[in-house]
Amino acid sequence: MILTVTLNAALDVTYQVPRLRPGEVHRVAGVHERPGGKGVNVARVLHGLNEPVLATGLVGGGTGAAIRTLLGEIRHSFVDIAGISRRTTVVVDGSSTTGFWEPGPEVSGPEWESFVAHYAALLRISRVVVLSGSLPPGLPVDAYARLIELARSVEVPVVLDASGEPLAAGVAAGPDIVKPNAHELAIMSGMAVGAFEAGAVELVEAEAVAAADAVRDGGRTAVVASLGPHGLVASTGDGRWHARPAAALTGNPTGAGDAAVAALAFGLAYRVPWPQRLADAVGLSGAAVLNPVAGTISQTDYARLRRAADVREV
Amino acid sequence: MILTVTLNAALDVTYQVPRLRPGEVHRVAGVHERPGGKGVNVARVLHGLNEPVLATGLVGGGTGAAIRTLLGEIRHSFVDIAGISRRTTVVVDGSSTTGFWEPGPEVSGPEWESFVAHYAALLRISRVVVLSGSLPPGLPVDAYARLIELARSVEVPVVLDASGEPLAAGVAAGPDIVKPNAHELAIMSGMAVGAFEAGAVELVEAEAVAAADAVRDGGRTAVVASLGPHGLVASTGDGRWHARPAAALTGNPTGAGDAAVAALAFGLAYRVPWPQRLADAVGLSGAAVLNPVAGTISQTDYARLRRAADVREV
Repeated sequence: MILTVTLNAALDVTYQVPRLRPGEVHRVAGVHERPGGKGVNVARVLHGLNEPVLATGLVGGGTGAAIRTLLGEIRHSFVDIAGISRRTTVVVDGSSTTGFWEPGPEVSGPEWESFVAHYAALLRISRVVVLSGSLPPGLPVDAYARLIELARSVEVPVVLDASGEPLAAGVAAGPDIVKPNAHELAIMSGMAVGAFEAGAVELVEAEAVAAADAVRDGGRTAVVASLGPHGLVASTGDGRWHARPAAALTGNPTGAGDAAVAALAFGLAYRVPWPQRLADAVGLSGAAVLNPVAGTISQTDYARLRRAADVREV
Repeated sequence: MILTVTLNAALDVTYQVPRLRPGEVHRVAGVHERPGGKGVNVARVLHGLNEPVLATGLVGGGTGAAIRTLLGEIRHSFVDIAGISRRTTVVVDGSSTTGFWEPGPEVSGPEWESFVAHYAALLRISRVVVLSGSLPPGLPVDAYARLIELARSVEVPVVLDASGEPLAAGVAAGPDIVKPNAHELAIMSGMAVGAFEAGAVELVEAEAVAAADAVRDGGRTAVVASLGPHGLVASTGDGRWHARPAAALTGNPTGAGDAAVAALAFGLAYRVPWPQRLADAVGLSGAAVLNPVAGTISQTDYARLRRAADVREV
């Protein structure tokens, strides 16, 4: 079983409006709600692949109750907190998608300790742990580091997908895989932010591989960076690869990173060789982009895009 | 005690963002929640004036629980429904206020009957009833008409503030006061929509009084129309008046109409003569405009603006 941890779980709300006009009142015709947060999205992708998965994390209030209810068939075991889980509202009109991300509930020290104990118990039945997303207010910056140390102490491998200081502190604790995006990779490796957003693929590849090497620094943590349309670069103890989609895809990029993390977790669980693991990640990401609802994928798209992925050792 | 009815109660959520940019993701710094819906706003104004008030209506789900909790000291007795109460989200940046109104929960037939029975019991302890705002999905278009007939059968006077078909059906049931805005007045009287939005005050007054007369049609229902910066016109069995603020006010017009309704309900409860009642309504509306939080007012602003109101028989 793969355990996904979502400390700042969210209720994702989508509002359909004919056209977003700042300064006006919009009567929302369609309201769609579903549970979210990066770890929950990873769990949804794995569940869709019929992979045994358990979603855990922190939830509270009416929003938390809605998250639990809407998880439906996705197995979950969240710890209750007094605060109210955040909502992430997305306003969709014909031409644009506009997001409003609440910061999340304040988590108390005892609530955090209660979660750590719950997590330690769940580790005993987990093959892999996925730690994803932002920390809610009140959690220590080394929250992921502590969860990684606990997993390592019982030899459960860890995938970390975070940002900012919690990511830096988490990487120092030695997860098995860390999945930064281009922006996070640039910051962690000390390169100029934005270096990966322009230029040809070759330039991106050379820079990204150098940055991933710098972050790995010869250590145990494999660095797999997601570069949007340029695919993934991986710097690992077994070698370096660049995995690219066969063609540019247009669609909804939200959730593509979470789909890649699902493939990396699956690969860790079954010791899938790196080239195939990266092709799986490119295929799942691409299938997520093609699907209008983040985190759900078509098996047909996945199979086709995985086969078409271009994986080269560099 | 004044009874306010809010069939489509809401959780009003305000998001503070530096600048609203369609197509982008906004990390919301400040989230503020409070109970809303027009009847709840009327109750808040009356409570602020130390007037005994009870808020009723329908609430459900986590949003409904939050509405109840956040009502705080405002007395309330809502009926539970299985659906989830709506949220109305307002995004505020430095220069604009953008609203997203959810439609509200589906209400079943038995839930509606349960509310009607609860309302009939509350009527026995009410001096005046205020019926305000939209109907949630599932309620019959004659919902307000039925509540008005019940109030009339036990001689409790009614103020109605609604729109569209529920307003038209409600007016036919003979409330004591109906408070359309300019748009609703135009539609009900058969005049061109927009007739009250341009032109000099004198023109607005003549047209608005004629329209209010047409809606009243010699019947028992006093028609008090709110015309934004042009104040209120009233067509009643006792005469016709135009009540105007002494000067144009800049601020937040949200809730100004609800403040006027609070004054009209108070006036019915204590049989306040029409000119004073309309001055109260202009003063409370103006005080609401000057306050950044809809539905809360400063007693000082209220006293000053009430004294300064210009009320003329026409």
